[in-house]
Amino acid sequence: MADHYKPFEPLVKRIKEDGKCLNGGILKVDSFINHQIDPTLLQAMSIEFVRRFATKEINKIITIEASGIAPAIMVGFLLNVPVVFVKKKKPSTMAGMYSTEVFSFTKNRAYTVCCSKEFLNEGDKVLFIDDFLANGNAAKGIIELTKQAKAELVGMGFIVEKSFQQGGSYLRNEGYQVESLAIIDSLDNCQIKFKEN
Amino acid sequence: MADHYKPFEPLVKRIKEDGKCLNGGILKVDSFINHQIDPTLLQAMSIEFVRRFATKEINKIITIEASGIAPAIMVGFLLNVPVVFVKKKKPSTMAGMYSTEVFSFTKNRAYTVCCSKEFLNEGDKVLFIDDFLANGNAAKGIIELTKQAKAELVGMGFIVEKSFQQGGSYLRNEGYQVESLAIIDSLDNCQIKFKEN
Repeated sequence: MADHYKPFEPLVKRIKEDGKCLNGGILKVDSFINHQIDPTLLQAMSIEFVRRFATKEINKIITIEASGIAPAIMVGFLLNVPVVFVKKKKPSTMAGMYSTEVFSFTKNRAYTVCCSKEFLNEGDKVLFIDDFLANGNAAKGIIELTKQAKAELVGMGFIVEKSFQQGGSYLRNEGYQVESLAIIDSLDNCQIKFKEN
Repeated sequence: MADHYKPFEPLVKRIKEDGKCLNGGILKVDSFINHQIDPTLLQAMSIEFVRRFATKEINKIITIEASGIAPAIMVGFLLNVPVVFVKKKKPSTMAGMYSTEVFSFTKNRAYTVCCSKEFLNEGDKVLFIDDFLANGNAAKGIIELTKQAKAELVGMGFIVEKSFQQGGSYLRNEGYQVESLAIIDSLDNCQIKFKEN
């Protein structure tokens, strides 16, 4: 539930120091998340995800290439479970797959996400990890893929959530445990306004 | 030097067990490297990269999104240095960048790779990590980007090298330390033929 949100302070601090806000509600965290990764922060965030999903049984991490791969890999490493990368296009060498359409507001177009049937199985208990939660379209794609596979989506962890977009409230209303390490209430006037506890 | 090649046996064993060879010289390692990652193998391979580049001073890992991210992240984590993802398209939010063209034989088209000038600096000692070495075009792109930045490319580590394509011999002739954990001499007739010591 959103009520129980607790910001992960090392991340909030880092966003305040190094995050940049661009026109159009874009938060740029290139220097430590998207284009260059700080390994110490990555480890700390991944341990925090492990803590937040400590009550859940998890046998697989799932993410969508490319920007979710780094935190997903680190959480998979900590939990010692396989990490599955959902692909953004249908690779020519992949036969037998689950697939669905995802609409990207950032890119203003739909794309296909797909996952081989080999790597998502009935009964899997899957944790979805991604960098950003905004409109939640990538998450909806993951929900659809796990449904096709009859896998159980036990939770979703995001580094940054933009609460002024509707993904978080939609997913929580659907009953999913959604954990965001930092929630941003507004990027108006190029000011980063964090949600408090 | 290619003379000193020593296969990383846990990887060779895994490729023999789970790798698939498809028509057209394609090696499919989807179940443990490209589409699903085995965290135990990933850690073992990353430690092996650290060993092989133990004599080098390294302050940054560089890779090209998306399939190089997982091993690059793990090596960066082990060495506690930042990991830079070279991007495959020019993101609209990135001003001031190094860029060059890379030709992909797999996709039969050229694409632009780019890196913000913020994250690749003069004097950086950079280790390039990627999943596959075939024609070496991605590596040539990295050489060009590091040259533009006046950074030093101290070595290149690949999970799998296809020695029947020319990337490895080209890069070694240029004087780079190239370390491949498994080298495949031939995929003719859908048989995986490994290079021996």
